[in-house]
Amino acid sequence: MTQRWRCICAYDGTDFAGWQKQPSGDAVQDKIELALGEIFQCPTRTIGAGRTDAGVHAKAQVFHFDAQWRHDAEDMLKAMRAHFPVGISPRSVVPAGARFHALLSAKGKRYRYRAVEGWAMPEEDRFVLSLKKRKPDLERMKEAAEHLVGTHDFSSFSASRGMEEDESQVRTVWRIKLARKGAMFEIEAIGKGFLYKMVRSIAGALLDVGCGKIEPVQLKEILMRKKRTEEIVSAPAKGLCLEKVYYRRPSTK
Amino acid sequence: MTQRWRCICAYDGTDFAGWQKQPSGDAVQDKIELALGEIFQCPTRTIGAGRTDAGVHAKAQVFHFDAQWRHDAEDMLKAMRAHFPVGISPRSVVPAGARFHALLSAKGKRYRYRAVEGWAMPEEDRFVLSLKKRKPDLERMKEAAEHLVGTHDFSSFSASRGMEEDESQVRTVWRIKLARKGAMFEIEAIGKGFLYKMVRSIAGALLDVGCGKIEPVQLKEILMRKKRTEEIVSAPAKGLCLEKVYYRRPSTK
Repeated sequence: MTQRWRCICAYDGTDFAGWQKQPSGDAVQDKIELALGEIFQCPTRTIGAGRTDAGVHAKAQVFHFDAQWRHDAEDMLKAMRAHFPVGISPRSVVPAGARFHALLSAKGKRYRYRAVEGWAMPEEDRFVLSLKKRKPDLERMKEAAEHLVGTHDFSSFSASRGMEEDESQVRTVWRIKLARKGAMFEIEAIGKGFLYKMVRSIAGALLDVGCGKIEPVQLKEILMRKKRTEEIVSAPAKGLCLEKVYYRRPSTK
Repeated sequence: MTQRWRCICAYDGTDFAGWQKQPSGDAVQDKIELALGEIFQCPTRTIGAGRTDAGVHAKAQVFHFDAQWRHDAEDMLKAMRAHFPVGISPRSVVPAGARFHALLSAKGKRYRYRAVEGWAMPEEDRFVLSLKKRKPDLERMKEAAEHLVGTHDFSSFSASRGMEEDESQVRTVWRIKLARKGAMFEIEAIGKGFLYKMVRSIAGALLDVGCGKIEPVQLKEILMRKKRTEEIVSAPAKGLCLEKVYYRRPSTK
């Protein structure tokens, strides 16, 4: 019998063309569907909680799929570990209710952007932006971030993905948390949903505020303009990671 | 005028054939000498503080070289950043006294081995051994490690690199520090010097003690046997990192 499954996976996005399936076959989703096809001996479609761009990482991307499987979940995880390529790591897989939908059931997401003063060590180089000689001021960044929290039209902080003019650009950001640990800056954005390139645009803008290129209060003006301009420069993909997808706790039937 | 320089560099050893120059040209030292040759427009030999094996990483390998350079150290570091390949990161370079020798002046070294219960996240996968279902007991490992501290003939914990029979296998280990942080095990070995594969052999043995394959007291017997046997299995290279090379503080002339 076919059953719905919910999988959490982590990936190093460096060598993949983002989450979303690509004609080239180089996306994380392509690799996972290829592996699942081998495991189940049957073409298997997956639905992910969110598209991450090329080069963006995930600690806990969530996806679902339907499959026939006669063994238990532990065996499926083992099979995934054996078939997923290097850089994509399944962390858990569990049977899900037929109504669970990785994208539509998601209540929110947490992303983290990391940037380090100076040059990143090789160990973190694939996951952290090197700020080189830039020295952001955390207090300025915190002041600026306040303007972005809440429900707004985030057109100024997104990049059009093409014919999406009808789509609403209104999103709700619950929290932007800024921290500095030694030379490392961490920008956490938690919200109901994010537009294409929105977190990277926010991270880029906050770092520019921190370095004095933009005044904190200007972020409010830019936001209210509802139009993307050259003032906002998206931070490079490598520093971004999808840390968590929030779902409602499954009801106990 | 020719001047001696001392450089600290970090590297992700995954894609290199170890520190030491190789006919294949794939070692870290090969890549660095190639880069220095481009920078100084002159073949440049380097001497490293210690050879790290293929796949072993460094946070602070130290090497010296002699070169003519008309600009300052900051400019040299900039040139190194531009010429070193991905995965090798120069952290500092300073003029050194003519008598400084990265290998012979070294007083000691600190290595760290990391292993994680379960499966490593993609972010740490190149630097940490996945213990999968093995669950080591830290207290057993601590007990066993005590037997290895001090000055001993470490033949049982080294792998012959060929015709080295005349060489003394006596080494002094100052400290073996074991810690557990969540699912992560850290084994730090600090000593005057280490034999080929010695730290990996110690790490492998301690993890085997932790998992019950070897009794803590047996490590003492194995050490005193002064002969490598199949009981000792070197831990994989990926978990090992050269963290620090100790030198005497330069005298203030």
